[in-house]
Amino acid sequence: MSIMIRPAQRDDVGAIVAMLADDHLGRARERVEQPLPQSYYDAFEAIVRDANITLVVAVEADRVVGCLQLCILPGLSSQGASRALIEDVRVAIDRRSRGIGEQLLQWAIAEARSRRCNLVELMTHQSRTDAQRFYERLGFAKSHFGMLMRF
Amino acid sequence: MSIMIRPAQRDDVGAIVAMLADDHLGRARERVEQPLPQSYYDAFEAIVRDANITLVVAVEADRVVGCLQLCILPGLSSQGASRALIEDVRVAIDRRSRGIGEQLLQWAIAEARSRRCNLVELMTHQSRTDAQRFYERLGFAKSHFGMLMRF
Repeated sequence: MSIMIRPAQRDDVGAIVAMLADDHLGRARERVEQPLPQSYYDAFEAIVRDANITLVVAVEADRVVGCLQLCILPGLSSQGASRALIEDVRVAIDRRSRGIGEQLLQWAIAEARSRRCNLVELMTHQSRTDAQRFYERLGFAKSHFGMLMRF
Repeated sequence: MSIMIRPAQRDDVGAIVAMLADDHLGRARERVEQPLPQSYYDAFEAIVRDANITLVVAVEADRVVGCLQLCILPGLSSQGASRALIEDVRVAIDRRSRGIGEQLLQWAIAEARSRRCNLVELMTHQSRTDAQRFYERLGFAKSHFGMLMRF
């Protein structure tokens, strides 16, 4: 089945939030209600306004089956190269192991190169060992710790 | 000695790059020349243009002795909460262990709270064990791996 990757639209927010919630770490953090809390739409508008942030979805037969957020971050280090940060990678549980995540990542890597970043970085919870193997297979190295403070 | 934390100005770029270069990981990545390569100034202008990114310096007796970059990243997850990402934390080698790094971090944490983020995150190379202890003391947890692909 062929997959299309395109920027997320407002109508995709519900499907994206459902994927974020359908996860052992995400479940407690989201509110999947009808209608969705306004805070999700406010965040979507903030993403759309930010030229350095792109939220994309993978679409298969008119269904949103994956998502990924790419942030292009200017910075002084490495002679002023920008970095690309990948966040919120998800694939619908019933559509995993079909290469959808890899297509999303390859899109992000190509976009980071075309925006002249010198690296792509992401954080993944230490418990997500399958995700770590997946990223290593694509060429990422587990060189850093990701440290978080939640408020 | 009292420290002031303020947004970086164009005239600070040389001092910031010198700190980025004065490091076992940064040394090979930077070019500390007179004049500095234009790419550093181009990156500085990109940071200034981005309302979601703030590069601050710690100033002690008119000398730049530390820096930190804070990125506020909107996103759908956690009910549309923004996240704060800290990058490029440095303190001049001869001014370490005086609380300058802690003041920079506390500034960033307060700013993240005031911008209504639900978390602050950062990546640190696994070899930087002193940095990891420092961040843990401030309340960060080493919960994630940071994975990188360099181009």
